[in-house]
Amino acid sequence: MPLQAIDEDPRTPYQLPFPPDAQDEIVVPKAIADDERIWVPQAENVSFRPLCLNRSQGYWMNLLRVRKSGVLSRHRHPQPVHGFVLKGRWHYLEHDWVAEEGGYVYEPPGETHTLVVPDDVDEMITYFQVNGVMLYVDPMGNTLGYEDVFTKIDLCRAHYTKVGLGEDYVDQFIR
Amino acid sequence: MPLQAIDEDPRTPYQLPFPPDAQDEIVVPKAIADDERIWVPQAENVSFRPLCLNRSQGYWMNLLRVRKSGVLSRHRHPQPVHGFVLKGRWHYLEHDWVAEEGGYVYEPPGETHTLVVPDDVDEMITYFQVNGVMLYVDPMGNTLGYEDVFTKIDLCRAHYTKVGLGEDYVDQFIR
Repeated sequence: MPLQAIDEDPRTPYQLPFPPDAQDEIVVPKAIADDERIWVPQAENVSFRPLCLNRSQGYWMNLLRVRKSGVLSRHRHPQPVHGFVLKGRWHYLEHDWVAEEGGYVYEPPGETHTLVVPDDVDEMITYFQVNGVMLYVDPMGNTLGYEDVFTKIDLCRAHYTKVGLGEDYVDQFIR
Repeated sequence: MPLQAIDEDPRTPYQLPFPPDAQDEIVVPKAIADDERIWVPQAENVSFRPLCLNRSQGYWMNLLRVRKSGVLSRHRHPQPVHGFVLKGRWHYLEHDWVAEEGGYVYEPPGETHTLVVPDDVDEMITYFQVNGVMLYVDPMGNTLGYEDVFTKIDLCRAHYTKVGLGEDYVDQFIR
């Protein structure tokens, strides 16, 4: 149960130092960045904004942005995905539910799906945690490609170099 | 790199069945629930709204809501935490940055901190992924209690029974 013993000083901060080997935190004040350079293109009308690119556990937290008529190609997830819709609306061709603004979605390991945005939505932005890998497949499940946290980092480095932020810009999001 | 081969039919859905052993997805249309019964009290002015309570990996996705003068007591995280602020503003007594609406925070393993909401904020709501355990500690790091995904499930069952939704109401969020 939450608290088994009484906390005598609930507003007294922790007095000891943090472990010297602990990583730094990441604080991103306005995740939906106004600076267009921060959004990394990944397909036509599809881009992402990195938040945490985790090397030791192999997952990434990012905002996925899809603009009019963009499609996130058919892909399989061997590990869980969590989505929280911050703006707009989307659905998977393989499901009949719709992910709406303010909504949460858990996608279990084993899903293969294709993310599309309806014509009346100009832009959707969803905060996703993707674990492991996305395996792009054809309609019969034959592999066409993949993305993992390292291809995401590569895309960021190439893009940030191109737009003048520098390849090191992504380092603040890598853990 | 994302797509190594050409997808001939980007809008053709996946044609095969999902793995029969795969779990069901979770779809929560409006995560910030209007129905007050869905919010599970965990301390004075602090409540949470379960989204995914994962038993096999020992983590939980939830909305944490803190109303005026609420405090999330000092606690240590041995595993990573991800937060996305949906409403309001908060900070940790142990850090000088502020988590603002629309902002993202990564809290590395090894952090001990105390979440407080400033007086001019009536309500803050943050979408958190908490992995493993929260160890409540006193200012010198002595353990006062803990929470894990199973104590969260217990709290949900007890609360949903009390408010008439029934102890099974939480099952839709358990994976």
